[in-house]
Amino acid sequence: MELKNKIDELKNYLGQYEKLVQALGLVYWDMRTNLPSKAGESRSKVVEYLSGEGFKLITSDKVSEFITDLKPYVNEMSLIEKRMLEELERNYNETKKIPEEKYVAYVGLCSNSELAWEKAKDAKDFEIFKPYLEKVVEFQKEFIEYWGYDKDKYDTLLDKYELGLTTEKLDNIFLELRDGIIEVLNKIKESKKTLNRDFLYGKFDADKQKELSLYILDKIGFDMEAGRLDVSVHPFTTNFGNKDVRLTTNYHEDEFTSALFSTIHEGGHGIYEQNISDELESTGLQGGASMAIHESQSRFYENILGRSKEFCSYLLSVAKDYFEDFKNVTLDEFYEAMNYVEPSLIRTEADELTYGLHVIIRYEIEKELINGRISVDNLKDLWNKKYKEYLGVEPRDDSEGILQDMHWSDGSFGYFPSYALGNLYGAQMFNTLLKEKPDVMEKVKKGNLTEITKWLNEKVHVHGAIYTPEELIKQITGEGLNPKYFIDYLKNKYYKIYDVE
Amino acid sequence: MELKNKIDELKNYLGQYEKLVQALGLVYWDMRTNLPSKAGESRSKVVEYLSGEGFKLITSDKVSEFITDLKPYVNEMSLIEKRMLEELERNYNETKKIPEEKYVAYVGLCSNSELAWEKAKDAKDFEIFKPYLEKVVEFQKEFIEYWGYDKDKYDTLLDKYELGLTTEKLDNIFLELRDGIIEVLNKIKESKKTLNRDFLYGKFDADKQKELSLYILDKIGFDMEAGRLDVSVHPFTTNFGNKDVRLTTNYHEDEFTSALFSTIHEGGHGIYEQNISDELESTGLQGGASMAIHESQSRFYENILGRSKEFCSYLLSVAKDYFEDFKNVTLDEFYEAMNYVEPSLIRTEADELTYGLHVIIRYEIEKELINGRISVDNLKDLWNKKYKEYLGVEPRDDSEGILQDMHWSDGSFGYFPSYALGNLYGAQMFNTLLKEKPDVMEKVKKGNLTEITKWLNEKVHVHGAIYTPEELIKQITGEGLNPKYFIDYLKNKYYKIYDVE
Repeated sequence: MELKNKIDELKNYLGQYEKLVQALGLVYWDMRTNLPSKAGESRSKVVEYLSGEGFKLITSDKVSEFITDLKPYVNEMSLIEKRMLEELERNYNETKKIPEEKYVAYVGLCSNSELAWEKAKDAKDFEIFKPYLEKVVEFQKEFIEYWGYDKDKYDTLLDKYELGLTTEKLDNIFLELRDGIIEVLNKIKESKKTLNRDFLYGKFDADKQKELSLYILDKIGFDMEAGRLDVSVHPFTTNFGNKDVRLTTNYHEDEFTSALFSTIHEGGHGIYEQNISDELESTGLQGGASMAIHESQSRFYENILGRSKEFCSYLLSVAKDYFEDFKNVTLDEFYEAMNYVEPSLIRTEADELTYGLHVIIRYEIEKELINGRISVDNLKDLWNKKYKEYLGVEPRDDSEGILQDMHWSDGSFGYFPSYALGNLYGAQMFNTLLKEKPDVMEKVKKGNLTEITKWLNEKVHVHGAIYTPEELIKQITGEGLNPKYFIDYLKNKYYKIYDVE
Repeated sequence: MELKNKIDELKNYLGQYEKLVQALGLVYWDMRTNLPSKAGESRSKVVEYLSGEGFKLITSDKVSEFITDLKPYVNEMSLIEKRMLEELERNYNETKKIPEEKYVAYVGLCSNSELAWEKAKDAKDFEIFKPYLEKVVEFQKEFIEYWGYDKDKYDTLLDKYELGLTTEKLDNIFLELRDGIIEVLNKIKESKKTLNRDFLYGKFDADKQKELSLYILDKIGFDMEAGRLDVSVHPFTTNFGNKDVRLTTNYHEDEFTSALFSTIHEGGHGIYEQNISDELESTGLQGGASMAIHESQSRFYENILGRSKEFCSYLLSVAKDYFEDFKNVTLDEFYEAMNYVEPSLIRTEADELTYGLHVIIRYEIEKELINGRISVDNLKDLWNKKYKEYLGVEPRDDSEGILQDMHWSDGSFGYFPSYALGNLYGAQMFNTLLKEKPDVMEKVKKGNLTEITKWLNEKVHVHGAIYTPEELIKQITGEGLNPKYFIDYLKNKYYKIYDVE
């Protein structure tokens, strides 16, 4: 066997799979942005069909042959080739454990479930979504039995989004995080300073918001020739290779920040995908290192950068061109409004400080649900109880409570922790960035983000999924994930803003 | 063999194929409406891949088995089952003749060629598109060799869009049509009446045009819950089953009619697809009877109905709500402006009378090109010469000349005649409609098109591709295609408008 030929053959095979996945991705994107209301059922069948074909491709005997043929040559392979083979084997083994008809039925269920979630959210009625969610949870539990588990069933799901992550590790991380957040929050409660954010509410024309969003996307380094910005109920990013990366947002005319900061958030995901090396096409590695690393980028752009005083300075100067309302707003006022802390109901709208608590609530609920210690029937009560307990708020209806996120509708259990981990990774990287380039934030004041984006490109983006999250964070910062950086960052930032300690 | 089981198995198989075709259709739609500029090449690969899979499905041994197994039972089959089998066999035999790698290479070429055509049109430069067109023509010629031909190579292509159509038949039809058009045109030239259409040019806000287009689409019976209206360079209709039918248009702010009437035209295609029976799903018959029958619907809505005095009366009353400019325009003025005859450069913008000449020009050029009597090198000169000769006009640049239509870019040679045949079919159907329902146009004045659309639903749409065009027109009108109805319609209408004879 000529190693090079066999590798080329495998890449060709994976290329086919990638093309199928891209087509499927487009069908999903279209379902969330463009689908006529009567077409849901028939489009779900297309999703089922393509997913079934993808399943066949990734579990075929051909793949098993590639693995057997190539494994003896691992020592002669380049790093990328080695990782490609590892990733293929992991994917093959994991997918192969699920019977095809189960998989296809599950995929069909999920696309219907997503549509039901949208309907339920519109109607603010969890009951519409509940029967779908019950089935999705049943499937997830069944899949865990197929996949197997060690101590905790939920570990099997966590591992899918963050290789090697367990509830044991996460319990510790989240304990430290929660304590940190609560500590800062308590200080803020003692603060005598009151911030004002009234000027962020009013009438903000959707077309102008869109123009501003596009302008800022360009500034932060998102390439509009290799991407789009559209509208959907729940903002998301999807991509078909690195030349077509699609973000969505959702304009609310009664306030200023929601669409803009969700655009910047999705922009962070998008910049990641756009800058993954062309070399990784058809290797299975042309994607992020993990969902948490992905979130580290989106939340870095959204918060660490986007809500920094330096960026606020630039943003305010631009926003004044779009909206009269900001004419007399000072930088301090604007910066403080952008970082107003208030325990609230909606995760995606939460301030940077209390955001982690939203994630921890979901994490705790998912653990219980997946381990069968609670049922979907109890979900809403538990949700409301935890929101009361952790954040002191109560949803007025299901759409601002249990229906606010779409993740459960497509079975993404185990994903939520990625958001909080993303904050941690992001702050840890930021700490290194500032050490390596102490003046970098100065340039942000003038809207110059080139150096930051370039640093992230080189350190994170270009590598795609070549390195595990752990390898990557060590490579960049010299140590493994450490929550201390994020907690220090929060303390530094919010004590100053709220004039405490 | 249980016939019912075997039929179900076939429908299941065809259902898979349909889903693949729907995914591919969505990829195409997206290429024309949404694609970021850098993604062309990678998306073309997705098109190639899916087309290749489709090719495999339709030429598989499985299909050959279905045909062999089912053919002996034709007499026990329902009409739909019979037609399903016939259509499958025709498709199998035809596709099977082309080697898969040729087919895939051709599909890839076409999607690149479409993008090149768009670029060339933007740059008004045929040279950009020429190398692609040359290759597309070469492939078409090669395919004709595979498919075989009898008297004329071009017949093989005509037959793809209109079963059984030949150059011999079409030469006669087009001779009669051309003579009819010229006769009317000459009378008009003698007319002393001058029509005014200045008020159709000015400043028409694109958003308002869109609103009006959506309003009118709804009025004519297009179901927005089972479809969309988007924007693309060249308006088109595509559909994924009958529950997701997508139209596009192109707004020009300097004039009133282009976007609206292209929307109505595409709306005619769309209404057809939306009303094809659900029963025809997964049979291969859930589409129009032929491209000419399809065009009969689109051009019926656009012209026979859309530019009728009755519809103009309604449209004017609505348009006045959208555009101040029409405040003082009378019905006669509006109707005459909508039917202003003037030989011109752009087919899609041509008046109803001279439109046929645009088609005849393309027909004559395609015949020569496909039979190798001229080459792509001579194409532009021949185009300009014929426009001078038939219509007395000369393009100022390639974009309003040889680059105006996208059809050649994706190899749709043999399609153009469908437009003119569509006019003939439409007028013949209209003649019958008026006999059966003499008062039907009265209701149109009030914007009530329900009865007309219902009649077309029942006579044409619901049947999908169950009947051949010939069977269908005989069934509806009692005779085969007869150009006389369209020519009579033209004479009646335009002699009155121009006050001649």
